[in-house]
Amino acid sequence: MSRGIGKEFMEKTKYKYLEESDQEKGLDQPPLQSEYNSDSILIDLPSANNLKIKNINLREAIESRKSLRTYSDVSLTLEELSYLLWCTQGVKEVIPRPATLRNVPSAGARHSFETYLLINKVEGLKPGLYRYLAIEHKLMEVNLDSNITEKVVFSCSKQNFIEKSAVTFIWSSSVYRMKWRYGERGYRYIHLDAGHVCQNLYLAAENIDSGVCAIAAFDDDEINKLLGLDGEDQFVVYVAALGKRVL
Amino acid sequence: MSRGIGKEFMEKTKYKYLEESDQEKGLDQPPLQSEYNSDSILIDLPSANNLKIKNINLREAIESRKSLRTYSDVSLTLEELSYLLWCTQGVKEVIPRPATLRNVPSAGARHSFETYLLINKVEGLKPGLYRYLAIEHKLMEVNLDSNITEKVVFSCSKQNFIEKSAVTFIWSSSVYRMKWRYGERGYRYIHLDAGHVCQNLYLAAENIDSGVCAIAAFDDDEINKLLGLDGEDQFVVYVAALGKRVL
Repeated sequence: MSRGIGKEFMEKTKYKYLEESDQEKGLDQPPLQSEYNSDSILIDLPSANNLKIKNINLREAIESRKSLRTYSDVSLTLEELSYLLWCTQGVKEVIPRPATLRNVPSAGARHSFETYLLINKVEGLKPGLYRYLAIEHKLMEVNLDSNITEKVVFSCSKQNFIEKSAVTFIWSSSVYRMKWRYGERGYRYIHLDAGHVCQNLYLAAENIDSGVCAIAAFDDDEINKLLGLDGEDQFVVYVAALGKRVL
Repeated sequence: MSRGIGKEFMEKTKYKYLEESDQEKGLDQPPLQSEYNSDSILIDLPSANNLKIKNINLREAIESRKSLRTYSDVSLTLEELSYLLWCTQGVKEVIPRPATLRNVPSAGARHSFETYLLINKVEGLKPGLYRYLAIEHKLMEVNLDSNITEKVVFSCSKQNFIEKSAVTFIWSSSVYRMKWRYGERGYRYIHLDAGHVCQNLYLAAENIDSGVCAIAAFDDDEINKLLGLDGEDQFVVYVAALGKRVL
């Protein structure tokens, strides 16, 4: 049973219990992005520099944000998807440390996430599961099976609004990118980081007449299996469904 | 030692291990806001409706955000502080469930946070430690001892830039507000939620020529003691220093 695990986690991730990190031991830093098969089908995204997206003001975005679970049938454009990916994980610069500087902050610029996308309604893309390659700003096909949406819905406690979403973001952590520097305390940080990312998604959605509902109630084993993640070194941290507002 | 605690936490907070929550057992929901002494000195904040704050656009805020650790000596106005509190924890509505609807999302609208503020440079406020009463949109004096800044710096691994911050936000969780519904899995959610809050702070700061540096490297015991939190039912989850940019 789980009783007391939260309290124990907070206790054991205090500094007094932390061991020397792998960085402190002089071990090599893991890569900035998880590997992918070089045979994969990659899809160009419109450059983030030239997107024809309107631009609401910050306060309007913050105040109008509201979790949305009912979506219209209108598709996103590829430009809009590019914009959302740019705002949530877009890489502004790869610095020689090496590290990525992105449109969201991350503890020690560790940026442990990969973004998976369940795409249902985006112009020009077949429905299916994709991965965002943030450094390349490209999409990669992962799984275009016709029942993939159904499986994602099932893995997210049958929250059926996912089925009607235009796109559902699934953020996984390659946790060693964070643990390498911060050890076990890094498990706190990946969740803090995921909140940063998802908040930008909420706000950016307001800008394209869309809304978001974040989902943390997923079946870890099911969703990790679906994405081909081992659940220990790589696992899902947060999910967010997004779609156009019903006008 | 801490080895393996992160993995164990992720494992034991899977649904298959979760016990019936206190909500499911029919126990009473905890209050929406932590108690405070009715003798406390309260300070009115300018209403969020009439703030004379410029309004940058969302994309500019997202792209210009950069962690900032060097601050100018310029103070914040009380209006600017009110704006930051509104954007991060401001209560838009108290609904009869009861629950608060705020300018940030929270799992199940649980909103488990209290905001403490180390104020160094805000016009009209004595330096010291304050708490934000989100429902009242007021400040409460907590501790105006002259060495309080030094103590906060010490509790945050001696990150000296806190001393030069205009205000440092300290978010504590009254975790039972979250656990009442979600049990031990709620410890994930309070961190996700804190990321949402802090991202809004980062973006709102851009709007008032300020910058933020989030801090998760604090000595839990020290900072909790400083705030008078027991470290189990209430504890600090995240910290963020903020100050005006050096022009």
